[in-house]
Amino acid sequence: MATKVNIRDVAKAAGVSVTTVSHALSEAHTSRVNAQTVQHIKAIAGELGYAPNRLARGLRNQRSQILGLVSDEITTTPFAGAMIQGAQDAASEHGHLLMVVNSGLDNELERQEIRALQQHQVDGIIYARMFNQLVSVPDELGAVPAIVLDATTDNPALSSVVPDEFGAGEAAAELLVAAGHRSIAMINNEDDIPAAHGRLAGFRETLLRHGLQLPAGRLVAAHPSTAGGREAALQLLSGTDLPTALFCFNDQMAMGAYQAAGHLGLAIPDDVSIVGVDNLELIADALWPGLSTMALPHYEMGRWAVLKLLNELENPDEPRLHEKIPCPLVERFSVAPPKN
Amino acid sequence: MATKVNIRDVAKAAGVSVTTVSHALSEAHTSRVNAQTVQHIKAIAGELGYAPNRLARGLRNQRSQILGLVSDEITTTPFAGAMIQGAQDAASEHGHLLMVVNSGLDNELERQEIRALQQHQVDGIIYARMFNQLVSVPDELGAVPAIVLDATTDNPALSSVVPDEFGAGEAAAELLVAAGHRSIAMINNEDDIPAAHGRLAGFRETLLRHGLQLPAGRLVAAHPSTAGGREAALQLLSGTDLPTALFCFNDQMAMGAYQAAGHLGLAIPDDVSIVGVDNLELIADALWPGLSTMALPHYEMGRWAVLKLLNELENPDEPRLHEKIPCPLVERFSVAPPKN
Repeated sequence: MATKVNIRDVAKAAGVSVTTVSHALSEAHTSRVNAQTVQHIKAIAGELGYAPNRLARGLRNQRSQILGLVSDEITTTPFAGAMIQGAQDAASEHGHLLMVVNSGLDNELERQEIRALQQHQVDGIIYARMFNQLVSVPDELGAVPAIVLDATTDNPALSSVVPDEFGAGEAAAELLVAAGHRSIAMINNEDDIPAAHGRLAGFRETLLRHGLQLPAGRLVAAHPSTAGGREAALQLLSGTDLPTALFCFNDQMAMGAYQAAGHLGLAIPDDVSIVGVDNLELIADALWPGLSTMALPHYEMGRWAVLKLLNELENPDEPRLHEKIPCPLVERFSVAPPKN
Repeated sequence: MATKVNIRDVAKAAGVSVTTVSHALSEAHTSRVNAQTVQHIKAIAGELGYAPNRLARGLRNQRSQILGLVSDEITTTPFAGAMIQGAQDAASEHGHLLMVVNSGLDNELERQEIRALQQHQVDGIIYARMFNQLVSVPDELGAVPAIVLDATTDNPALSSVVPDEFGAGEAAAELLVAAGHRSIAMINNEDDIPAAHGRLAGFRETLLRHGLQLPAGRLVAAHPSTAGGREAALQLLSGTDLPTALFCFNDQMAMGAYQAAGHLGLAIPDDVSIVGVDNLELIADALWPGLSTMALPHYEMGRWAVLKLLNELENPDEPRLHEKIPCPLVERFSVAPPKN
């Protein structure tokens, strides 16, 4: 490397603190510094030939430039890939290699793996779960800087990132209400997890804001699978006073709702509109017609976790954050106005 | 470790070569030694307190005990997880950590990652593709022992493992013929890849063996997606002299065939039987009725690659192998005898 400019040189030249420079030049925190200051700092950094991805390089001699990602269930989840890709891309861009290890649900193996990562002197560990949950992180994690991905923790030393579940429910309700629906049902996941509570709360509160109720008969909780969604939809779509729209906890349950509608001779979206959550391409894109759904931000969460962890490695006193990433709507063809 | 018995001690005590001991005690190669010799060697190894997973431990001082897995498209494939899990389990059982890196389709990034793995002194590299293809491995791979997973290569120095595509086609034909079908069609993948050629050849040859043809009008090649399968099935299931059974290149195309059958008012399996390949749980298990399909052996391929690589690390003169792993039938509810 030709230049040896470090973050302190930039801070001095710009007349601001090291933390402010770090925030201004980090993707994750640029919003925490006012725009004019960011511009000023970027100009100074440019003049001096300093760039944020040298943060890490400048410390190459003290660090291994490896981050470890410990996950529980790579095998059984279709989402792992996007989360790992997001983490990988952010790590690569900052000159780090990502070492992924997978413990399954075996706590002892997980502890061994964390110790092994430490023996291989990883700079930090991303502790990833494959769905949003509250975790107690293993004690082994205390020995090295770490961050929690797709889970929350009561450990105040660790930042974490999860999807904005409440926002996903809100957006689904807004979509259906905007299309003109008034008789709306929800098929929720029966499991006691943050995603089920958050999506329901966002959905229900948004309906209320529009003067609509979600009565008990219009809310069914089931196993979060295609079969669970199918059974729930068969129940909701039989009888009298049928809903004209269904919000399903996930795309797999929405696939079950498609099967139920087909079985009952109801056309999607003309007889019933359906919305999911996940944007699991293999399902949402494959259903006929394509499923409108809120995308879970796995790629973005993976990126955020790595960027925030690198930031905390550089600045150990960085405040810890508990981030919620929005779930954007991906519109396909499963929502239309109700028939009358 | 209490004992320092090594593979040479076992070979000497058993009166056989080190290679024979290695074969006899390795999951991957035990079939290459006669059963009596295997028993003899295992008895000696037991007496001496030697076990195959000490192969690696005995060399701890010379090796990093890390294997690298380089893959191309973790993100976009639902199969990556099972392959990584198989590799991970085999590595863990033998005291190794698996470091997974993902290059996307970026050749330059892949080269950088391979160099980085070498800098971190991995003992060997598993070069994984996400579907069976012929690859030219990058030159960087020459510097460290390596094996090719879910691909073949013309590099004679490297062993490789792929699914038995021909066998998958054979098994699908046997299943449909045994159910009594005589008018059978195939929806193939239009891409020029080993899986498409192998499955078709196995399917066609097996039909011929039973005195049945696969005429041009009963073979449609399409994009290997749900939409591709749907279009092909709409074509095959319209008109006169309809087939009573469809063999689909993969589960996604089979999902499209279900949609086409539903659209045409045909019941599965009573009006048309459908068979896929993949056993992608998210689809095969979610379809209604469940899809009978040949499972791609991703977990087993991942295991085989690691076991064979560890074997070659221990015995560099081991013959290189090009293994084909069987694709077992997973029966669900999509095949029944034809109506008349």
